[in-house]
Amino acid sequence: MDAAEFRKRGKEMVDYIADYLEKIEKRQVFPDVEPGYLRPLIPDCAPQDPESFEDVFKDIEKIIMPGVTHWHSPYFFAYFPAASSFPALLADMLCGGIGCVGFSWAASPACTELETVMLDWLGKMINLPEEFLAGKDGQGGGVIQGSASEATLISLLAARTKTIRRVQLEKPELTEADIMGRLVAYASDQAHSSVERAALIGGVKIKNVSSDDTFSVCGSALKKVLDEDKASGLIPFFFCATLGTTPCCSFDKLLELGPICNKENIWMHIDAAYAGSAFICPEFRHLLNGVEFADSFNFNPHKWLLVNFDCSAMWVKKRSDLTGAFKLEPLYLQHHHQESGNFINKLDYYYFHWQIPLGRRFRSLKLWFVLRMYGVTGLQEHIRKHVRLSHQFEHLVLQDERFEICAEVVLGLVCFRLKGSNELNKALLKSINEAKKIHLVPCHLRETFVLRFAICSRTVESTHIKFAWQHISQLATALLKTWEQNHHQQLQQ
Amino acid sequence: MDAAEFRKRGKEMVDYIADYLEKIEKRQVFPDVEPGYLRPLIPDCAPQDPESFEDVFKDIEKIIMPGVTHWHSPYFFAYFPAASSFPALLADMLCGGIGCVGFSWAASPACTELETVMLDWLGKMINLPEEFLAGKDGQGGGVIQGSASEATLISLLAARTKTIRRVQLEKPELTEADIMGRLVAYASDQAHSSVERAALIGGVKIKNVSSDDTFSVCGSALKKVLDEDKASGLIPFFFCATLGTTPCCSFDKLLELGPICNKENIWMHIDAAYAGSAFICPEFRHLLNGVEFADSFNFNPHKWLLVNFDCSAMWVKKRSDLTGAFKLEPLYLQHHHQESGNFINKLDYYYFHWQIPLGRRFRSLKLWFVLRMYGVTGLQEHIRKHVRLSHQFEHLVLQDERFEICAEVVLGLVCFRLKGSNELNKALLKSINEAKKIHLVPCHLRETFVLRFAICSRTVESTHIKFAWQHISQLATALLKTWEQNHHQQLQQ
Repeated sequence: MDAAEFRKRGKEMVDYIADYLEKIEKRQVFPDVEPGYLRPLIPDCAPQDPESFEDVFKDIEKIIMPGVTHWHSPYFFAYFPAASSFPALLADMLCGGIGCVGFSWAASPACTELETVMLDWLGKMINLPEEFLAGKDGQGGGVIQGSASEATLISLLAARTKTIRRVQLEKPELTEADIMGRLVAYASDQAHSSVERAALIGGVKIKNVSSDDTFSVCGSALKKVLDEDKASGLIPFFFCATLGTTPCCSFDKLLELGPICNKENIWMHIDAAYAGSAFICPEFRHLLNGVEFADSFNFNPHKWLLVNFDCSAMWVKKRSDLTGAFKLEPLYLQHHHQESGNFINKLDYYYFHWQIPLGRRFRSLKLWFVLRMYGVTGLQEHIRKHVRLSHQFEHLVLQDERFEICAEVVLGLVCFRLKGSNELNKALLKSINEAKKIHLVPCHLRETFVLRFAICSRTVESTHIKFAWQHISQLATALLKTWEQNHHQQLQQ
Repeated sequence: MDAAEFRKRGKEMVDYIADYLEKIEKRQVFPDVEPGYLRPLIPDCAPQDPESFEDVFKDIEKIIMPGVTHWHSPYFFAYFPAASSFPALLADMLCGGIGCVGFSWAASPACTELETVMLDWLGKMINLPEEFLAGKDGQGGGVIQGSASEATLISLLAARTKTIRRVQLEKPELTEADIMGRLVAYASDQAHSSVERAALIGGVKIKNVSSDDTFSVCGSALKKVLDEDKASGLIPFFFCATLGTTPCCSFDKLLELGPICNKENIWMHIDAAYAGSAFICPEFRHLLNGVEFADSFNFNPHKWLLVNFDCSAMWVKKRSDLTGAFKLEPLYLQHHHQESGNFINKLDYYYFHWQIPLGRRFRSLKLWFVLRMYGVTGLQEHIRKHVRLSHQFEHLVLQDERFEICAEVVLGLVCFRLKGSNELNKALLKSINEAKKIHLVPCHLRETFVLRFAICSRTVESTHIKFAWQHISQLATALLKTWEQNHHQQLQQ
């Protein structure tokens, strides 16, 4: 395919995408296919000779679309939102066209520099303390990671290196392996599985801290486990606080936890993957109070800030903590500028020192396009609409006394269930997801099986919420009827 | 921006990208900007109100392009190629439009299933042993990682878990920390820095194995260090063999190394990040002989197979080794299908168990588009053209007796230098990169400073090679003149 054909096919693809997104509502949100559906539909191996674009293009509707879960359907209420917007799509096209691999300043100066400035823009939008910003001569700064999991891992590894160095100074008789064997990381029992995974990767212990009856970790819970662990010779070194947990969007109490971490030399990382985007609205910013105690902070514009996946924003107070944990510098990545005194030039702005992979795409273009073409007010409207819709759904649930709300609705997630057994609620979820008019996923809150209703699509409106609730309500009525009959039969037997 | 505007702007962007790539030759390959150039060109913070697409669009040429290193210019000979092709750009647009996050089968069945089949296609193209393929009921299979660094890390972590479990069975008196403290990974002294980094992340020791005078690791070199380390109580557990090293594209001797690793219970991972794409040509496939001894294998279609970054293909013989190392299963990621007996459904086809991040894009679309629209023959032509051009350059160097070739030219990389001191060659590289007509990066081979000339662009032709050589040759002439004058002056002083 040459540039001339790309002009033609690219425009066809733009129309296809516009059509797909404009009419997505008409597609069934969750596919009908059974596992293994795709393999029989395509050849066993790649063709020897080129096929035409038309051949490939017609297979999109034939082979791919029947197996797609439509994350941008206004009937999709599962997981958390995956951001999508037209400005981000345009920026990603440009990113692909430029096709640079920006692992160092010299590999494409614009790629490194725009990222640094965009993370400052974004940090200012959520009123992050200045220490987290790069500015012209700050010690902090932001970076785009691929996912919150990577941000958690990177911060845990930085904390591990920092703690090992400190303990080795204090107790030179301990080997690195001795110290590693005593390190403990902590996170809420509501924290995302990626925190446990980060500890597993880093080869350190991790313990759950019990959340309270609002599913938040408070200071006393952390203090209790720290005291026990220190008494038994362990070395607490890392705490991952969550703002907006995955199961129910609860918030750990930063203002209590932060001072404890600071006093105990524990790196506090904040994972606000979903909730973080809301902090651009002044009325939600208080949820971030206490961030001043943290060493690192992360949220995902690719969840709720209309920047297509992947774009996970992470900030640190001291970027030397990150770069110091990994710095390796082969000659083919060095550049004559790096010896100069200029800020951006310093080795710590070789972003590959901040992340797991070496290569990186020009992802800051997406932030630049989205922040400019929506403006802060446009993005605030998007957040506020979602929060309004979740309260609308909450209100509908509360009006039906068969149902209960299971956790405070703060942002765009409603946890709800039928009053009754877990089995009953599993049956309800099954009937919802088998009907495939809307799509939800469940969670456990303690021992309780709960349905999660997350406001996801950019284009979801009040009418979709009403429809979803009526649908759930009707399915519940039908379910309860059979359920009671079965129960009645069981009693008679 | 609504869908109607996206149709208009998307088409403008398609034309912009087509123009950019068609006329890239006219742009200076390496930018003129100084570090810190960008920040003064844009506002301090995001705009409150939306800006128009036109405003943003005109800033691409004004703010971004002056700071771009043009990786797809036919005058770019630095690092290794970053793949780019029109079919891949189209697929990436579609990937963005669908915008699903495919961490599990249910999250978008097509995303998981196409990836599994595409990795089988690709595996067959390089004639990987069948054990590495998923097929319909294999124990192996492939996955798309973001980078070779992640593939190396994942395989090292899987090897670590596997070894710890085995040693704990054999010696129950050892704690996990004891074992961790004794584990050693190995790689060539020519291996990529990401291998050392993987060990650093995994908290295990790593040692270099000396390469021979062709910069390859042979069996005896590995055996020597293994014997020493075992004698001193260490536990060798992981060897990363490299096919196509970054400095000079040398090849470790798999047929010698593989049997040693198998015998010693050492996980052998093969990193063929750059070279792997060449194995689709029968005449280069012999370089992969010995892969049958490996546990995992990786190469980057995003380097040399015309699939835009990121798309790093990794295969394992036993996918349970990967998934067993990390499996964590929160309820919100479970799905009713997964209990069934169907193959694709099994937990080990939840690709998030295979990788560091949880989220993942629909990257297999790029493989599908590229493999079909080029066909195997089209991709073979691309590889063969690059190898032909590197030999053309090698031939030009060899005809000039001021220069020498520093390592065997096997694929698309030529390592060369002026006969003489490292300082002389540093001065030559400086004059080349300051002239900015072409762009190169250096490497060290042992103590020797070497210039790397990598065939990179999809559109590079014989004329560009001739131009590049004439340019280098003229700069060398000018340099040698001043150099000799200075030398002469120094002798007189």
